[in-house]
Amino acid sequence: MRFPLDTRYPDYDTKGHVNNAVYLTYFEIARAKLWVEAIEESLDFPYVVAEATVRYVSPALLGDPLAIEVTTTEVRTRAWVWSYRIVDPRDERLVAEGRTVQVMYDYGRRESVPIPDALRAKLAAV
Amino acid sequence: MRFPLDTRYPDYDTKGHVNNAVYLTYFEIARAKLWVEAIEESLDFPYVVAEATVRYVSPALLGDPLAIEVTTTEVRTRAWVWSYRIVDPRDERLVAEGRTVQVMYDYGRRESVPIPDALRAKLAAV
Amino acid sequence: MRFPLDTRYPDYDTKGHVNNAVYLTYFEIARAKLWVEAIEESLDFPYVVAEATVRYVSPALLGDPLAIEVTTTEVRTRAWVWSYRIVDPRDERLVAEGRTVQVMYDYGRRESVPIPDALRAKLAAV
Amino acid sequence: MRFPLDTRYPDYDTKGHVNNAVYLTYFEIARAKLWVEAIEESLDFPYVVAEATVRYVSPALLGDPLAIEVTTTEVRTRAWVWSYRIVDPRDERLVAEGRTVQVMYDYGRRESVPIPDALRAKLAAV
Repeated sequence: MRFPLDTRYPDYDTKGHVNNAVYLTYFEIARAKLWVEAIEESLDFPYVVAEATVRYVSPALLGDPLAIEVTTTEVRTRAWVWSYRIVDPRDERLVAEGRTVQVMYDYGRRESVPIPDALRAKLAAV
Repeated sequence: MRFPLDTRYPDYDTKGHVNNAVYLTYFEIARAKLWVEAIEESLDFPYVVAEATVRYVSPALLGDPLAIEVTTTEVRTRAWVWSYRIVDPRDERLVAEGRTVQVMYDYGRRESVPIPDALRAKLAAV
Repeated sequence: MRFPLDTRYPDYDTKGHVNNAVYLTYFEIARAKLWVEAIEESLDFPYVVAEATVRYVSPALLGDPLAIEVTTTEVRTRAWVWSYRIVDPRDERLVAEGRTVQVMYDYGRRESVPIPDALRAKLAAV
Repeated sequence: MRFPLDTRYPDYDTKGHVNNAVYLTYFEIARAKLWVEAIEESLDFPYVVAEATVRYVSPALLGDPLAIEVTTTEVRTRAWVWSYRIVDPRDERLVAEGRTVQVMYDYGRRESVPIPDALRAKLAAV
């Protein structure tokens, strides 16, 4: 799925570039939109993020429009991988890319659990 | 009370100044330190912030050390005012000043409550 | 002018409320949109923010949609006031309101300057 | 090198945990302190961050003290790796770990350059 990103002025650092940490927030925004639009309508996510990686390819400057793509690239028994690409939609220039590993989690029992089959199918489809 | 402020790189905007919204976070840091050091050792604050004002006097640039002063300037029945001054400690240059109004709050009953006498005395002393 | 606000997960604090400092970022988002849509197409704003006030009326919870209104409420020789209202558009419940004072600024000469007549007219119209 | 981390209330999310993106800000804080204390006294860093990875091991809760360790784990011709460990210093529990890849960069010429020998030696020593 692909979404436009609403950047904010505090996202930019003293060099006029989106700060390196903000990309993880952009990934989080994409995850939340993907979840609500393609998985289920709740913001109470049943997973924890276990790992995140960002590769910074070209700077995003103040005023550059940005779009983010997120897709499921791996589904394991208890975990899955979402991969992201952030681009400038004017010319599809790649700004950053990355991935996060999510682990299915029971917050009540405080432990990881297997991904239910219905969710597995939905995750594989996005 | 006065505390040194640990600024962070994302606090600064594209002009190299601390972003205007961050000063409310600096006020919040000062409130939390004041509470733990002078009122009680819990981070579970029994109040809500009802109003905040910042006056921006001179810019804080990347590399400038900053200190913040917080003091109680008014205590009413259910509310009190904390006033803040942010300075560059090298020459006491005033960077920003402001105030926040706190209302004593019972989160269980979801309503404002009178300030207990013991707290009133501690608030008046800082 | 009125805009929908794109909230982000990190805007919310441990109580599930939008953090008090984030409202100044929401004001900033509204100012930037107003400027680009009604004043001129540049993100290089010729002013400094001299003062900001927020009054917190009711909490914005995770999942609540938010909209922001911004309007010019005063124009002086070198400064003007923008006033803001943040509401839940489902029932127009007021979440927060506030104002910021902007001073026309020449960043090259580092001093305040009078508001040009053309800008004054545009400011008065929004 | 090891530093205590000054956490801030907005670092915590609705579950009371440090938000996943904030760890990259903690890494950035550690990089800046390391640079000023062990490399040179300037905040004008001659590098760009090319890649960042975080592995989330256990949650950091509101009130938990945190410390961060940063060390150089690889030095190449034009790039080097800093590795990080964030722990709760009360029992050395590992909260998160990660790495960032820095590329030596000439901001004037806008291109990567080889790491000077003097810097290489300092990087290898921390």
